Amino acid sequence: MIVVMQTDASDQQITSIVERVTDLGLVAHLSAGEERTIIGLVGTTPLPPTLDEMLEAYDGVEQVIRVTKKYKLSGWDFHPEKTTIPVLDFVIGGAEVTIIAGPCSVESEEQTLETARGVRAAGARILRGGAYKPRTSPYDFRGLGEDGLKILATAREETGLAIITEVMTPSDIENIYDYTDIFQIGARNCQNYNLLEEVGKAGKPVMLKRGMSLLIEEWLQAAEYVLSQNNPNVIFCERGIRTFETQTRNTFDVAAVPVVQSLSHLPVFVDPSHAAGKRPFVGSLSLAGIAAGADGLMIEVHPNPDHALSDGNQSLDLEEFGELMPRMSAVAQAVGRSVHQPTVLSPA
Amino acid sequence: MIVVMQTDASDQQITSIVERVTDLGLVAHLSAGEERTIIGLVGTTPLPPTLDEMLEAYDGVEQVIRVTKKYKLSGWDFHPEKTTIPVLDFVIGGAEVTIIAGPCSVESEEQTLETARGVRAAGARILRGGAYKPRTSPYDFRGLGEDGLKILATAREETGLAIITEVMTPSDIENIYDYTDIFQIGARNCQNYNLLEEVGKAGKPVMLKRGMSLLIEEWLQAAEYVLSQNNPNVIFCERGIRTFETQTRNTFDVAAVPVVQSLSHLPVFVDPSHAAGKRPFVGSLSLAGIAAGADGLMIEVHPNPDHALSDGNQSLDLEEFGELMPRMSAVAQAVGRSVHQPTVLSPA
Amino acid sequence: MIVVMQTDASDQQITSIVERVTDLGLVAHLSAGEERTIIGLVGTTPLPPTLDEMLEAYDGVEQVIRVTKKYKLSGWDFHPEKTTIPVLDFVIGGAEVTIIAGPCSVESEEQTLETARGVRAAGARILRGGAYKPRTSPYDFRGLGEDGLKILATAREETGLAIITEVMTPSDIENIYDYTDIFQIGARNCQNYNLLEEVGKAGKPVMLKRGMSLLIEEWLQAAEYVLSQNNPNVIFCERGIRTFETQTRNTFDVAAVPVVQSLSHLPVFVDPSHAAGKRPFVGSLSLAGIAAGADGLMIEVHPNPDHALSDGNQSLDLEEFGELMPRMSAVAQAVGRSVHQPTVLSPA
Amino acid sequence: MIVVMQTDASDQQITSIVERVTDLGLVAHLSAGEERTIIGLVGTTPLPPTLDEMLEAYDGVEQVIRVTKKYKLSGWDFHPEKTTIPVLDFVIGGAEVTIIAGPCSVESEEQTLETARGVRAAGARILRGGAYKPRTSPYDFRGLGEDGLKILATAREETGLAIITEVMTPSDIENIYDYTDIFQIGARNCQNYNLLEEVGKAGKPVMLKRGMSLLIEEWLQAAEYVLSQNNPNVIFCERGIRTFETQTRNTFDVAAVPVVQSLSHLPVFVDPSHAAGKRPFVGSLSLAGIAAGADGLMIEVHPNPDHALSDGNQSLDLEEFGELMPRMSAVAQAVGRSVHQPTVLSPA
Repeated sequence: MIVVMQTDASDQQITSIVERVTDLGLVAHLSAGEERTIIGLVGTTPLPPTLDEMLEAYDGVEQVIRVTKKYKLSGWDFHPEKTTIPVLDFVIGGAEVTIIAGPCSVESEEQTLETARGVRAAGARILRGGAYKPRTSPYDFRGLGEDGLKILATAREETGLAIITEVMTPSDIENIYDYTDIFQIGARNCQNYNLLEEVGKAGKPVMLKRGMSLLIEEWLQAAEYVLSQNNPNVIFCERGIRTFETQTRNTFDVAAVPVVQSLSHLPVFVDPSHAAGKRPFVGSLSLAGIAAGADGLMIEVHPNPDHALSDGNQSLDLEEFGELMPRMSAVAQAVGRSVHQPTVLSPA
Repeated sequence: MIVVMQTDASDQQITSIVERVTDLGLVAHLSAGEERTIIGLVGTTPLPPTLDEMLEAYDGVEQVIRVTKKYKLSGWDFHPEKTTIPVLDFVIGGAEVTIIAGPCSVESEEQTLETARGVRAAGARILRGGAYKPRTSPYDFRGLGEDGLKILATAREETGLAIITEVMTPSDIENIYDYTDIFQIGARNCQNYNLLEEVGKAGKPVMLKRGMSLLIEEWLQAAEYVLSQNNPNVIFCERGIRTFETQTRNTFDVAAVPVVQSLSHLPVFVDPSHAAGKRPFVGSLSLAGIAAGADGLMIEVHPNPDHALSDGNQSLDLEEFGELMPRMSAVAQAVGRSVHQPTVLSPA
Repeated sequence: MIVVMQTDASDQQITSIVERVTDLGLVAHLSAGEERTIIGLVGTTPLPPTLDEMLEAYDGVEQVIRVTKKYKLSGWDFHPEKTTIPVLDFVIGGAEVTIIAGPCSVESEEQTLETARGVRAAGARILRGGAYKPRTSPYDFRGLGEDGLKILATAREETGLAIITEVMTPSDIENIYDYTDIFQIGARNCQNYNLLEEVGKAGKPVMLKRGMSLLIEEWLQAAEYVLSQNNPNVIFCERGIRTFETQTRNTFDVAAVPVVQSLSHLPVFVDPSHAAGKRPFVGSLSLAGIAAGADGLMIEVHPNPDHALSDGNQSLDLEEFGELMPRMSAVAQAVGRSVHQPTVLSPA
Repeated sequence: MIVVMQTDASDQQITSIVERVTDLGLVAHLSAGEERTIIGLVGTTPLPPTLDEMLEAYDGVEQVIRVTKKYKLSGWDFHPEKTTIPVLDFVIGGAEVTIIAGPCSVESEEQTLETARGVRAAGARILRGGAYKPRTSPYDFRGLGEDGLKILATAREETGLAIITEVMTPSDIENIYDYTDIFQIGARNCQNYNLLEEVGKAGKPVMLKRGMSLLIEEWLQAAEYVLSQNNPNVIFCERGIRTFETQTRNTFDVAAVPVVQSLSHLPVFVDPSHAAGKRPFVGSLSLAGIAAGADGLMIEVHPNPDHALSDGNQSLDLEEFGELMPRMSAVAQAVGRSVHQPTVLSPA
C-alpha cells in the first residue's frame, strides 16, 4: 500500500503515519521526492481491510493506493524518481554510464594491480575481481579467498577505483564487508533468498546478476529481498540467459535493459563478457548495451587472457579494453549519456 | 584418477595406497564392490605427472586410470555398482520405486498428520513437507520454521514414515538435522556451492533437485560438491526445466532419468507435481517417470488442495493419491520394479 | 459458434440450419455423436452480432454457444467424442496403441523390405520411410524421391503395412497421394500454412509433427488449417522441443500428451527417436510415452543403423525393436491399452 | 572445395577450370575480388578423392582448399569480400544502415500510401507490407493478396521506395515477382527448403528471417538453399528467438549480428518490432541493433497502430518513427555508419 502525502505535508504528519503503521506490524519505506513524500507499506501479515480508509483520514495525506504487484519497493509506484547510488566520488544511475572492469578472478597482486592501473587509465570507475569463485566443478580454481580481498584493497588504495566482489554465502559477508564497495550476487545465487536478506542487512550497495533462466518478474522480486531490509541500493545486471543457441555462451537479452527500466527505478547494468563468452563479440555487445540505455557495464579484462585461471576466453586484454572505451564513449554520447574520461596525469 | 585393486588385494595393501595419496594432499574415496575395491583420488591441486606409474608399482594394484571427466565421484568409473541408500526400514535405489508424498508446506499439525496417515496407508515411504520455504516473493508465506520441523517429527513418530525437508542456508543445517532423514536442496539452490558442501558434511542423504535451466552435466558436477565431502548418498530429482511452453509450469524432462542413469550410479527421482504444475497432469507424468526408469517419485499431496498456502494447484488430494498408487504399481511391475504395498492393520 | 441440436432433431432441421449459415458465408462442420448432432460454424468474416439469437429460434436447436478459442475444430467443444481414424484394417485413436516403425529414409528396396518384414513381425501397423527428406544442409542426402515412393508401395503390397511418408511442398501432394496412407508434415513445416491447407484438401489422414519451438496452443491452431478443409483426420506427433539441454537431441515434452488430450479430441502420437537422438534412450522414452497415454508411437528402425544415410544414431536395429515391443506391450496393458500382436504365420 | 586463382590468372584459365568441374557434375561459383578470383565448387555427389591435386596442376591456380563446413557459399572462405546488394538507387551492405519501414499488412491504398510517404520523408529506403500473411490461426486476417501487391506497386511508383513483401509458397513467386524488389521469407518458413530453392531461382534478393528457434548454424545452411541456385543476394534478418521470457514477444538475440558477420559475408538486418512485440521497446532495440553493427533494420510503422489489422501493439506511428530516425542516425555515426537523409523538397 502506498500513502501519497500532500506537497505541503509536515514531518510531524509523516511521522505519525509511520508510527501508526509500525504499530500494526508493517514496515514503512519513505521516498522523499522533490515535490512530495511517498510512504510505502510492506508487511508479510495481511493488511487490515479498511487500512486505506483509516490512513486517508490522517492529516497531510493526499491519497492511499493499494498495490497488488509482487515487486513493490523496486517499482515506480513506491519510488517515482530514478534511484542514484553514490559510490566514492561518483554516482551510479545518473547521466554517466559507469564502467566496471577487471579480471574474473584475483590471481595475484601483480595481475590485479596491472589490470587496475590499466582500466583506471582508460576510464573505468570500479574494479571487479573474484576472491570467492562459484565454479561449476569443485575441482576447478575457486579463488584466493581472503588473500584475494587484500589484493583488492591494495588496488583500491593505489588507484582510487571502487571495488566490487562476489559474496557466495552469508558467513562471508562480514569478512568481505571492509574490502568491497559493492557486494555482487552471482547468477547462481540470484534466488538464494537467505543470502539476499543477509547482504541486504549489511547496508552497502548490492549488484544482483540475473539468473540463467530468471524471468524479469522474478528478478524484480528477488530484489525485494534486499530492498525489504531497508537497503535501497540495488543494481541489476543482465549477463545473458540460457537458450538453445550455442554460438555465444549465453543469449544477451539486451531488451531486459528497457524492460526493467520501465518497471523499476533501480539502475540496470549489463555484462557483455558473460553474455558473449567469446572475446570477439564483447565489443559489439558493449555498444549494444549502451545504446539500449544501460546505466553501466561490467567487462572482464585481464592483462594476459590466454593465461587466465578462469574465463580467459571472454576477457579483453588491456589494449583491447583501451580501444573499446572511446567507442563506448561515442555511443554513450549518441544516446545522451557519457563515459568517464580520466584526468591524464602529466609528469612533474 | 582411479586405482583398480586386484581381486585378492589385502586391506593392508589398500591402506598403504590411501596413506600415500593422502600424504600427497589427495582425498581417497573407497568403493568396495563385490569383486574388488576401487580407490578414487580427488584433489584440487594438480596431480604429479607420474603419479599413475608410481601407484601401479604398489602391490595389489591391477590398473591405474586417469579420469578427465568433471563428474568423478558421481560417475560409473569410480563406482561401478548402483548406489543404494538405506533409510529407516527400506532402501532407495533398489528394485522398489520409492514414493515420497506430502504437502508443499507444513501448515499445521492437523494438516500434516492427516496427510501422513493417508499417504502411508497408500504406500508412501517418505513424508515431504517444507518448514523453510523459498518463495519468489518475500511477501508470501515462508513456512513455519522450527515449529514446522516439530510437526514433522510428530508425524514421523506416529506413522513411521521417513522425513525429507528442504534446507536453504548453511546456518539451518544443524537445526534441521535431528528432524529429517534426507536433506532436500531445492532447485533455486542447486548451484549454491557453500550450502552443498556444508550439507555434504552433515552426513545424511541429500536430494539434489535440478535447477530450472541446469544442464545435466552441471547437475552431476553439483553433486560432486556433496560427494567430495565423503557423503556418498546423493539422490537426483528431476522436477521440470524452464522452456517456452506455458501449458505446464515446467517442461518435464523425462529423458533426464535414463540419461543420468547412464552417466551415474546414483538414484534418480522425479517430481511430477512441480513439472506439471496442474493437478490433472500429475498422474500421467508420474506413470511416465516410472516407465522411464525413475528410482522414486516425489508427489505433492494435501488434504484440501484448494486451501493450501502454497502449490495448491499442483497438489493431489488424498483420494486422488490413493487412486494413483495402484496405477503406479501396475506400471512399475510392467518395467520390472515394484511399489511398496503397506500392511493393512486389521482392527483388534 | 456451436449449435447444439436437440437429441430428437431431424435431418431436415439440421439441413435447414446448415443452408442458412452457408448463405451467410460460414462453413458448417457436423459432428454426429451418439446422442445428438453438433454443428460447428467457422468463418473468416465477422459473425452477425445477433446470429446466436437467430439460430436459437430454429426448430430442433437446444443451445447456441459462442466460442472464442482459437482452436475450434480441434477442441472438445465442437467434437465431444474422441476421434478415431480407420486405416486399412485397424483404427488409430482407439484402445490400441498404434506402432509406426521404419527407416528415416528409404535408401533401397532391400533395406526397406527387410525393415518392413521385421517390424511387421514384431507388431508394427504402419511403415514409415522418407522419400523426400528435409535436410538442414542442401549438400546432404535428400531422399530417392519417386523411386522411394515406389519402394514403399512394394513394401505395402508385400507386408500389408500401411504407409506414412513426408510431404514437403504442395506440388508433391498429387505425386505422393497414391503411395501413402497418411501424409506426414515435418517439424520444419508445421507452420507452412499453404502446405497444411493443400494437404488438408487431399483428404487422407495427416500427421502433424510439432515444430521445434511450437507452443501447444499454436500446434492446435496449425491443425485448424487442415481441419478447416473438411479433413477431420489429424494426428498430432510430439517429437521433442528445442531447449538448452544437449544430452538429448531434443527435450521430449511427454506432458504434451495429456495436455493436448485435455484440449483436443484428436489422437496424439510420440516420436521417441527424434526426441532422444541417441539409441540407448529410445526405449525408455517409448515406455514413458505409452505410460503418459500416447495413442501411438513412431520409431526409427533400420536393419543396419551404423550405415544409415540419415539419423543412424537414433535408429534401433530390428533385434532391438523386437525386444522393445513386448516391453511396450506390458506398459500399454498396465495403463489399460494394448499393442498389436501379429499372427505368427506357421510354415505350410 | 575452393580454387584460389593467382592474381594474374587469365579469364581463359578460369574458364577451363569451370568447364572441367562442370563436366564432373559440380557447380562452380565465381567470386571475382579486387585482387584475385576464387572459384567455389559445390555438388551433392561425392568429390573425386584426388580432385584437389588435379586442379592444382592447372595453369593460373595458386591453391586448392578442401572445405568441410556445412555453410560454404555463405562463408568467408568462398567469398572473402563483404557482399553488397544494389537495389534501385542504393546499396545494401555498405556503409549505410538501410532502413525498411512500413505496416505489417497492406490494409488499404490510403493506409499504405500514407505510411510510404511518411517513412520516405524520414529516411527509409524500402517499404515493407504483407499481402500474403502467415497467421497462427486460419481465422485471422490473412492479407489482401494480389490487391495488396497492386497497392505496393502504386506506393513504389509514387514514392520511389523499394518494396519488400513476403512469399509463403512456391506457386506465389511468379505472381509476386513483378511487384517486389526483395522477397521476404518469414520465420515460419525459414526451413521450408522447397520454397527457399524456388525463390532462389527467381533471382531477386531474398531476405531470410531467422526461425523462432533456429540455430545460427542452421540459418547459414538455410541460406545455402538460396545461394546454391546461383542467387548470391541473401540478407539475414534477426527478429528475436523464442525463450522462457515473456516480457517481450521474443528475445532479441542482438549477438546474432556480430556472430553471423564473423561467419558470413552476407548482410545482417534486425527486426526490433517482432523482437520487442511492444511499442515502448522498439526504439531501444533499434539503437542496440545499429550499435551491434546491423547492416539494416526492418521496423513496423502504421499510421494508426491501435486500429491495425495485425501487429498493432508493436507498430510505431509515423511521428514516433520520425523521432526515432535522428536517434538511429546518431548511433550509426557513433559506430562509423550512416543512415540515409532524404532530400527535403522545398516548395517552388
